[in-house]
This record gives sequence, C-alpha cells and structure tokens, in this order.
Amino acid sequence: MVEKIAVIGGGSWGTALAILLSKKGCEVGLWIRNDKQCEEMRISRENLKYLPGVIIPNNVNLTSDFEKVVYGKDILLMSVPSYAVRETLVNGQRYIEPNQIIVNVAKGIENNSLMRISEIVNEILPRNKYAILSGPSHAEEVARDMPTTVVAASKERDVAHYIQDVFMAPKFRVYTNPDVIGVELGGSLKNVIALGAGISDGLGYGDNTKAALMTRGIIEMARIGEKMGANYETFAGLAGIGDLIVTCTSMHSRNRRAGILIGEGKNLEEAVESIGMVVEGIKTTKSAYELSLRYNVMMPITKEIYEVLYEGKDVKNSVVNLMLRDKKHEMEDIAKNLDSKW
Amino acid sequence: MVEKIAVIGGGSWGTALAILLSKKGCEVGLWIRNDKQCEEMRISRENLKYLPGVIIPNNVNLTSDFEKVVYGKDILLMSVPSYAVRETLVNGQRYIEPNQIIVNVAKGIENNSLMRISEIVNEILPRNKYAILSGPSHAEEVARDMPTTVVAASKERDVAHYIQDVFMAPKFRVYTNPDVIGVELGGSLKNVIALGAGISDGLGYGDNTKAALMTRGIIEMARIGEKMGANYETFAGLAGIGDLIVTCTSMHSRNRRAGILIGEGKNLEEAVESIGMVVEGIKTTKSAYELSLRYNVMMPITKEIYEVLYEGKDVKNSVVNLMLRDKKHEMEDIAKNLDSKW
Repeated sequence: MVEKIAVIGGGSWGTALAILLSKKGCEVGLWIRNDKQCEEMRISRENLKYLPGVIIPNNVNLTSDFEKVVYGKDILLMSVPSYAVRETLVNGQRYIEPNQIIVNVAKGIENNSLMRISEIVNEILPRNKYAILSGPSHAEEVARDMPTTVVAASKERDVAHYIQDVFMAPKFRVYTNPDVIGVELGGSLKNVIALGAGISDGLGYGDNTKAALMTRGIIEMARIGEKMGANYETFAGLAGIGDLIVTCTSMHSRNRRAGILIGEGKNLEEAVESIGMVVEGIKTTKSAYELSLRYNVMMPITKEIYEVLYEGKDVKNSVVNLMLRDKKHEMEDIAKNLDSKW
Repeated sequence: MVEKIAVIGGGSWGTALAILLSKKGCEVGLWIRNDKQCEEMRISRENLKYLPGVIIPNNVNLTSDFEKVVYGKDILLMSVPSYAVRETLVNGQRYIEPNQIIVNVAKGIENNSLMRISEIVNEILPRNKYAILSGPSHAEEVARDMPTTVVAASKERDVAHYIQDVFMAPKFRVYTNPDVIGVELGGSLKNVIALGAGISDGLGYGDNTKAALMTRGIIEMARIGEKMGANYETFAGLAGIGDLIVTCTSMHSRNRRAGILIGEGKNLEEAVESIGMVVEGIKTTKSAYELSLRYNVMMPITKEIYEVLYEGKDVKNSVVNLMLRDKKHEMEDIAKNLDSKW
C-alpha cells in the first residue's frame, strides 16, 4: 500500500518527517503556508530557513495550496506551531474529509482555553480520527538518520497501530500508547522545564543543578498529568522523561536555548528574536501555570518560570529559590505512604 | 553540636565532601591511603590528582593513619571505590567503634558476591548503623558550590534525619528516603547505562538516541530494583533518574567518558587508562549482568554492554541492536494492564 500523506507545516519537524515518509515510498505533499518560502524550497530542494543542509527528495510535492495538498490524502500530519493549529484547521476544514486521519506533532497547550491539541481537533473535526506522534526526536537528527524513538498515541488501538506502521523506519522506531492525554502533556510541559534548565545553564549553574531541576520537573509533570486523566507511566516513557531529557540537554532545543539567553540576562523578546523560530515553551508556560491553578496542583518550577517570564520576577534567584524550597523528604511528591516503610 | 567526621578516601568526592563539612564547622579528618599523596596534599592544600584547583581548608586534617582518623569520630564516611570498601573495613575494623555511623558514598555492587555496600558493611560491622548518600552530585561542581541535591537513605529514620542535618548546606540539599536498596542500586546501575550513553556518543549518534537509551535504562534499573526489594518510586527520584541524567550527560562523568572512548574504538584497557580514575561502571556491569540472571530480569542494555566489555562483541552495532529490538508497545515494560485501557 502506498500511503498518501499531507504534511501541514514546513518547519524543521514537518520537513524532516516529509523526507522520512517519502523515503519510505509514501506519496507526500508538504504544505508551506508562505508562498515565497515555498517557491524558494521548490528551487533549492532544501529548507534553508529551518533545516539547512538536508536535501528534500523530488517526490515530496511542495505546495502552498492547502486544498490541493489535503486532497485524496489518507493522513494529514499537523506540524504547524501549536498556536496555529486552530486557525489552520478552521481555514482548511472545508477541504478535509472525515475519513482522513489527523496526526499531530505540535507540542503545546492553547492559551486561555487551556485545550490540548486533540481537544482542538475534536472541536473542529469531530468525525476525524486522531493520533499524536511525540518523543525525543529533534528534527535535525532525524533528518540525518540518527536512531530515534517516538510514541504514537491514539484512543483507538487500530489508529495507533496504523500510524506506527506508516512511520516506522529502520532508524525511526515507533511505539504505541493508548494515553493521548499523557503523551500530549508530556510533549507540551517538558518545554516549560526546558526553559528552566536553560535558565540554570544561563546562570552558570552546573549539571548537578540541572539534573535536580529535571527530576523535580518530571514529577510535577506527572502530578498534573494524573489529575488530568493521564497514566502516570507515560511520564516514565519516551514521551515523558525521554523527551524531557533531550529537550533539557540538547543544543538543538530552542526552548533550552531561549532559557539560556534569559538566564544570561536577555529579556523575553530578545531571547525569542535571537532563536528565530517558535519557542513553544513560552506560551505553554502560561497555559501550564493556569492548569495548575485550575486543577489545584503544585507545580513549583512552572510557577517560578511563569513569574520570571510574565511577571518580571528577577531570574537571578529563580533556580536557587527552587532548590531551597523547604522540603525534606525526597518522596514527598511521588509516594503517598512511603514514610510507613520506616 | 560539632560533629566529628572521618572521610575515608581522598578521591574527588571524598575531598569535596570533606571541604563541605569543614566549611559547616564539622571536625573533619580526611584519610588518604597513599602516604606520598597525603604528604603532597598537606603541602599544597589541594588534591592535585583528583580535584585540582580547589583549596582544602586548613581545618581538614589530612592523614594516612587510619586508626588516628577514625578515633573519636561520630561518622565514618566511606568514599573509597566500591571494590575497596571491603578491604578497607576489614583492615580497619579493629579501630571502629560500634556507635560510629557508617555513611557510604561509593557506588557499586561487589563482583562475584553481588553484594551491595550496605550488605558488605553489615557483614563486617554488624553493630554499626548505616546510611547511604547518593544523587546527581559531581564532586567538581559541589566543590565549586553549584546547587546540588542528594538523598540520604537509611533503614532507620533517625539516622537518615541525622545525616540529613549533618550534610545539609545552603547549596547542598539533602532529602531523606527509607529505601536503602533502591538508592544503592540507583547509584550503581546508572553507571552501566552511562557507559552505554557514552558509547552512543562515541559512535556519533545523537541526542535523540541517547535520550531513548536513558529512558530504557531507567526502566530496566527499576525493573531489577523492584525484584530486589526496592521501591519503584526511588528510581523516579534524585538517586534514580536524577543521577542517571547527570551521569549520562555530563563530561564530569568518568563512566560516560570511558564509554565515549570505547564507542570511538578504544579497547577497555585503553579507555580506563585514559580516564586515570576508577570507572565504577565497568565492574558494576559484570555484577549487574549476573544480578539480571540471578533474578531472571530482562536487562537488555546491561546485557549488551556486558557483551561489549567482557565478551568482545563488536561495539559498532551495539546501540542499533538495542534500538531495533522487536518491541512494539511503549509500555510493555512498565505497565501491566495498559492494553486494557484501549
């Protein structure tokens, strides 16, 4: 079977996945919103802005025509920034058929509505099946065939297995998971922690400090996740701690790099401008903070970063504040009855 | 109260902790086995071999006299390599009083006997109380006052809390945990995974690959841990994933650096010689592999590294072998009934 796939969004990840799928023999259309950028990519066969140095095979059809790219496709892969998912689907919904499967790779939580991407998709396209593909997978490395593992999550087992088969490649391993909520939250919330990890680096703290921050980070992610209906185990997997690790430690991570700049004393605007690509964690910090209030869950790292980004709190003491919280028992957060083991 | 502490072992970690405790006002003796090295340190007030650039305060008493260093002390801090714990205690046991608390910071599992350090200590000094201090804490950073968090674990709550109070400092946060087995295994087994992470780096693989390896790594650590009586939650904490993260990502990690050299094609001896310090993970790989057989627990990463280190298996395919294992469900390992959620 030759799968037909429209990749909606020509950022680094969309481009890398379009290349991967085309190499597998799929029929791939890549939608680039911007006409001029699309035309440039057609000529250069390269995404000079977001994924320089990687050739886009000739059988990837590059287009800025949404109607054309989605026509007759089996799968629509959403690789626009998370804040653009709603607008893109609202504008394009008249071209989308109900039997087309929506696969999302954007990682974020909508501001104000606090909706996950699956909820947005379900609101606009209630009849379409949905899966999310997430995990430790920097586009720059996938495009260079570095061994990579991801998770395909869907409420429907058949959809998860189908997406697994479509994307699986020798160096790109896809595992399935039924926990859409957990996989969506893992991918979104880790960007907040990565901003914090970057801030720690930018302030000149060490690897010990960052590891502590990441350990506390995954705990607060899992805590809100459980409250929202996710499986705790998902946060121990590739879409949880796996993605958190890569985002907090890799220089490919825009969120980490934005954090470094902020830790070094740049303001938010300067940091974002310097990165030159969407830094999902910044908007997600606001949503995550509001989720912690809505669900009444303690998320001290998220709160601290929210205050630094949105309330002008001095970044200098932020990491130390988190370290010096008056908490004495390591397992306070994650074990309910551990004290009884003494 | 002025605590009296003998630090047994003048490697980087023993030296860093002696400095930390002396700055807190403790009475600290630091035992260096090698006479000549001890004399050099007395003159230079610096551990030129293992912790260069950090001044050892004058109130740290440097000695190679075991009897003298332990005399009258409240706490004996064991900071020799794990393979040397038994010999050091057997040789010194006639000087050790039963009311002295043994605090271990060595991270390893004895070859052949497969005993954890607490078991060795208990065999030689059955009347002494015991605690372990572990977590993401590279000596080089603690000595430079980078914010660091660790876990003090003891079977006795009072001992854990006492050790917490003794070691707690503004930039050195100590949490308690009753799970001695889990904390000991976390600190030991992560060195095996760090060798694998280093090998992945040495082979030229990317951050995606390493994050996948670490995610699978903590899962196999927790799996054997549970079988051996540890709390699963400990592996989600500082002494588990926290220490794993720092060891797999920091260039301070000797285990990771040894792995890099092996991945680059050096043999085991060359790698160890090049590091110039004890690489705990190498011996621990053997013990961990034998534990997996004894407890009949699947530990694919440990097995692969064992075969590379001890059975001459070609390192080149090791990481890819791990990635291509025929496993399809992300949660196969860690959730028992997750499929029923579909």
